Amino acid sequence: MSEHVYKIVKLVGSSKDGVEQAIDNAIEKAGESVRHMRWFEVEETRGHVEGGKVAHYQVVLNVGFTLDE
Amino acid sequence: MSEHVYKIVKLVGSSKDGVEQAIDNAIEKAGESVRHMRWFEVEETRGHVEGGKVAHYQVVLNVGFTLDE
Amino acid sequence: MSEHVYKIVKLVGSSKDGVEQAIDNAIEKAGESVRHMRWFEVEETRGHVEGGKVAHYQVVLNVGFTLDE
Amino acid sequence: MSEHVYKIVKLVGSSKDGVEQAIDNAIEKAGESVRHMRWFEVEETRGHVEGGKVAHYQVVLNVGFTLDE
Amino acid sequence: MSEHVYKIVKLVGSSKDGVEQAIDNAIEKAGESVRHMRWFEVEETRGHVEGGKVAHYQVVLNVGFTLDE
Amino acid sequence: MSEHVYKIVKLVGSSKDGVEQAIDNAIEKAGESVRHMRWFEVEETRGHVEGGKVAHYQVVLNVGFTLDE
Amino acid sequence: MSEHVYKIVKLVGSSKDGVEQAIDNAIEKAGESVRHMRWFEVEETRGHVEGGKVAHYQVVLNVGFTLDE
Amino acid sequence: MSEHVYKIVKLVGSSKDGVEQAIDNAIEKAGESVRHMRWFEVEETRGHVEGGKVAHYQVVLNVGFTLDE
Amino acid sequence: MSEHVYKIVKLVGSSKDGVEQAIDNAIEKAGESVRHMRWFEVEETRGHVEGGKVAHYQVVLNVGFTLDE
Amino acid sequence: MSEHVYKIVKLVGSSKDGVEQAIDNAIEKAGESVRHMRWFEVEETRGHVEGGKVAHYQVVLNVGFTLDE
Amino acid sequence: MSEHVYKIVKLVGSSKDGVEQAIDNAIEKAGESVRHMRWFEVEETRGHVEGGKVAHYQVVLNVGFTLDE
Amino acid sequence: MSEHVYKIVKLVGSSKDGVEQAIDNAIEKAGESVRHMRWFEVEETRGHVEGGKVAHYQVVLNVGFTLDE
Repeated sequence: MSEHVYKIVKLVGSSKDGVEQAIDNAIEKAGESVRHMRWFEVEETRGHVEGGKVAHYQVVLNVGFTLDE
Repeated sequence: MSEHVYKIVKLVGSSKDGVEQAIDNAIEKAGESVRHMRWFEVEETRGHVEGGKVAHYQVVLNVGFTLDE
Repeated sequence: MSEHVYKIVKLVGSSKDGVEQAIDNAIEKAGESVRHMRWFEVEETRGHVEGGKVAHYQVVLNVGFTLDE
Repeated sequence: MSEHVYKIVKLVGSSKDGVEQAIDNAIEKAGESVRHMRWFEVEETRGHVEGGKVAHYQVVLNVGFTLDE
Repeated sequence: MSEHVYKIVKLVGSSKDGVEQAIDNAIEKAGESVRHMRWFEVEETRGHVEGGKVAHYQVVLNVGFTLDE
Repeated sequence: MSEHVYKIVKLVGSSKDGVEQAIDNAIEKAGESVRHMRWFEVEETRGHVEGGKVAHYQVVLNVGFTLDE
Repeated sequence: MSEHVYKIVKLVGSSKDGVEQAIDNAIEKAGESVRHMRWFEVEETRGHVEGGKVAHYQVVLNVGFTLDE
Repeated sequence: MSEHVYKIVKLVGSSKDGVEQAIDNAIEKAGESVRHMRWFEVEETRGHVEGGKVAHYQVVLNVGFTLDE
Repeated sequence: MSEHVYKIVKLVGSSKDGVEQAIDNAIEKAGESVRHMRWFEVEETRGHVEGGKVAHYQVVLNVGFTLDE
Repeated sequence: MSEHVYKIVKLVGSSKDGVEQAIDNAIEKAGESVRHMRWFEVEETRGHVEGGKVAHYQVVLNVGFTLDE
Repeated sequence: MSEHVYKIVKLVGSSKDGVEQAIDNAIEKAGESVRHMRWFEVEETRGHVEGGKVAHYQVVLNVGFTLDE
Repeated sequence: MSEHVYKIVKLVGSSKDGVEQAIDNAIEKAGESVRHMRWFEVEETRGHVEGGKVAHYQVVLNVGFTLDE
């Protein structure tokens, strides 16, 4: 049980609403093709500016999932 | 007055509601045993995923407090 | 069109309300003197603590804008 | 439109001719199985030496592509 | 021959016996779906503690394999 | 249950026998004053050399434990 | 003579032709408003991909110039 | 009061006398064009050697100042 | 003798006189509650500016001490 | 006695048996031309894979030795 | 065969013509005193500016060579 | 003239008097076997503590010198 192998994929999520929503969007999208996701870690927080305002937030994240279940 | 000495402790806060709440939870918990907290800095943002959704956000933070007051 | 030159300025925004508001405050202030802002990236998230609670969040960010438009 | 999710894959390209050709080789190869590539970033530049001369340049790069188109 | 393209995948291996066994477990598992693995590099060494003892060691590693053979 | 707060302490363990034993020694010593240890991560691996041989291995590690149980 | 003060500005140059041309474009553009530039250092190399090919290379660089001449 | 916006500029100070004097020289020079400086942080310490001796010390520093006062 | 366990604490010392004095102040203060200090390493050098001059230097340092003597 | 000068050399050791043996091999080889080695620190752990198994482990390490004895 | 020991030396090459030529110049010069060079990795890319143009590119690189052949 | 090749050696200097003296000691010692030193950069500042006081400061530095004069 302690000898799982995990794979980590790197994703970029974005949202006009905030950092958590950008994370949620990436996790939700990844869930369409990957099962058994276990954790994520944020590598970068960034975003685009249009007309002098934040247009959307972007989050680069690593998502780990179990390979052997 | 400019010659304070500070100590920095490393904590992990978590919350199912968001990044700021995870920070707040760690600061509030630290306040039970540490007085004179002055600042924090976020070292990592991460979290756990359950059933294809973010179960909770985790924030690793350094919290500085005055030693000599 | 693909040969733009951008300049990047480093700012610190702060807000008592949260991380996104701290980003927004910095972008809004920068917009008073800089036009054609395109993107930002968060370099540090930190903050001040007063009376055992987060008094305000601070975000150090790089903001990129077009030099040649 | 602002809420795309991207995936990032890490590749190593190489070329005896130079750094740009090593990047181009990796992008071209990736294009055989991945569509909608949008950007790359170089993580390392390295290479092999044979007989006292550079035999080929190698570039480790992250390539981002749209998941949701 | 000098112009191979490699892909790098990020894995987490674990073992209750030690760091090398955690590496070996990840490589062995990866070998079930990836051929032509060439090298690995360790990005993090970590682990879990239970009952005051190390329960298992975990190793985050990048594994490179040839795309074009 | 998802809203634990953890504290992280930084330790250096050493052993003449190897890297895992250096980790084990630090965890065992920490266990004398800290309960509820959950995980560790290795920050540096180093050591001393005497008479042209490795005299002992040293491992700098962060150890996380639950504050609120 | 040894007590100059320099200022460093961060720029992004781009070019469809290569990394050196992207550096040159940024330096040339900076020269329109800054005199006495002395050195540069490359912080990131990146670029955009269109139609499966590199559309342009981008280089993030710090440029140092003398303030006190 | 908690919602200031700061700008950070990167400078290199130098001095034949030592590290603190190099910091002081950069701060003093910056003070000619920037008001409301609040803090600095040292990013690199370096220097030049002539005739087998340190000719001058150089310090790369970020200086933060208030934009909104 | 080669199997000591050390603990590392993170402190911030400050002094209006210079970097070494800031280090000395932190070590001296730490000595009030910690015995058997063995080494330190400087993680950041920074400071505050008032009236266009350095008001005090600050040094963030890790201090290691023996746990098992 | 406290004013030694050390030189640091960077080596890569390898071994099919494990990480410690790769360190030992590098130290032993260095000992053929360098006396008074005092410490080492591991900068990278990596290795080669052949036939789906770890063929050998490689360790990049810095080794410090006294110049003035 | 898998148990080679390598030494890594750090060099700075420069060229007015470009990044690859700066790498080649360093490798060629190193070849005058070092045999059995195997690989290089670029640690920094920088350069000097004169009269508003790049005067030469500089590349800091680590070069690895076999010690035991 | 713009196509020099430099070699960089890594040294540790120490002094009971301060950081600059530790740098000076390393440069002076290096000058016994290396000519044409041009610059240095400080990689780490650290030190030893004895009897609750700083016993000596240590500075890890890279020193660059011309290979081709």
